[in-house]
Amino acid sequence: MAKATLTISSKNYSSWSLRGWLLTRFSGLEFEEIVTAPDDPSARAEILLLSPTILVPCLRHEGATVWDTLAIAEYLNEIRPDAGLLPADRVHRAHCRSICGEIHSGFTTLRASLPVNLKGHFPNFKIWSRAQADIDRVCTIWRECLAESGGPFLFGEQRTMADAMYAPVVTRFKTYDVKLEPRLKQYADLIMAMPEMQEWIEAARAEPSDIEELEVDY
Amino acid sequence: MAKATLTISSKNYSSWSLRGWLLTRFSGLEFEEIVTAPDDPSARAEILLLSPTILVPCLRHEGATVWDTLAIAEYLNEIRPDAGLLPADRVHRAHCRSICGEIHSGFTTLRASLPVNLKGHFPNFKIWSRAQADIDRVCTIWRECLAESGGPFLFGEQRTMADAMYAPVVTRFKTYDVKLEPRLKQYADLIMAMPEMQEWIEAARAEPSDIEELEVDY
Repeated sequence: MAKATLTISSKNYSSWSLRGWLLTRFSGLEFEEIVTAPDDPSARAEILLLSPTILVPCLRHEGATVWDTLAIAEYLNEIRPDAGLLPADRVHRAHCRSICGEIHSGFTTLRASLPVNLKGHFPNFKIWSRAQADIDRVCTIWRECLAESGGPFLFGEQRTMADAMYAPVVTRFKTYDVKLEPRLKQYADLIMAMPEMQEWIEAARAEPSDIEELEVDY
Repeated sequence: MAKATLTISSKNYSSWSLRGWLLTRFSGLEFEEIVTAPDDPSARAEILLLSPTILVPCLRHEGATVWDTLAIAEYLNEIRPDAGLLPADRVHRAHCRSICGEIHSGFTTLRASLPVNLKGHFPNFKIWSRAQADIDRVCTIWRECLAESGGPFLFGEQRTMADAMYAPVVTRFKTYDVKLEPRLKQYADLIMAMPEMQEWIEAARAEPSDIEELEVDY
């Protein structure tokens, strides 16, 4: 049986690629990484939010092609139920899927005005009010989850799909110097310190910089 | 045990409400409908795409609160597995979830420039090129699904969550007079003719029109 593959784009810029990659790592499924060329038009379109839809990341596994991040999460949960990508309890599972859905379809201002850029660091970055509303909502979501589960992850001891879905937001908060209350900073630090995250960031730093001009198009 | 409730906003304008409502109807779960007041600030914010995130529709059922459309779909699939909201085959299920994910997170130009408006009809509506790219992608998705499944619904004889997720797009194509090739028009007509859809549209037509001024804010 051929090994599973996961197609991703830029490790420095693509929040969806990071989510799909973390989900697959969390699941324990072995996979081969396929990175689209930096000058691939669809990869550029995705990062610039110009694509009508997002076809990267894409997981291929035993005849199935799964190209949306939440679909990948649900697919992995089906084939690796023991990985705990969803909480075991029905009510918590519904909560987990709700906040994953929120970050999947919403937060458009946060996405556009604080784009993922792992190599970048912008202290005292000016955040406009609609982006601040997005940030406030993320903080409310995290606060509620951590209070209910007791942490250290959003739904308790085990990492779920929610931690993968919000991981790019954690990196945005670091890049744009967003101040967090202690309990939320502790969570953000924990996500940044995960070995998988460190591995991803190291690869992002090694990424050729010819794609960086894309930033100015925002 | 208290009956399930589904909170929705405008039947004429809210694509997310239509999706959540159709999903719940498809599942067979009995529920009571709660309609937010037309002047409810969060309902207005949702319809105007001003909300950071979308908290309507919201399903409440036996202690669970589920407020995202895809989360509602997965929740209903769990509690009503016999309703067939997802295809039985693993590969088709992955395909179904992928296209549901696409419409959930993408197509922002289509959403913004061809807003759902069931009472409206705009023949010869001018569609700009980025919205046309979204329309083309929807047509590709439908064409592939119908060719593979044989129709009449996207994944065959049974309505799945994909038909609910794309139903508001069908109404947009009617409202803005988007021309479709015969096979896709047949599918669009089938969706419009569903008894649930007819019931929804009738209620939309009866909706007080004081919310219509919202349109001009686009």
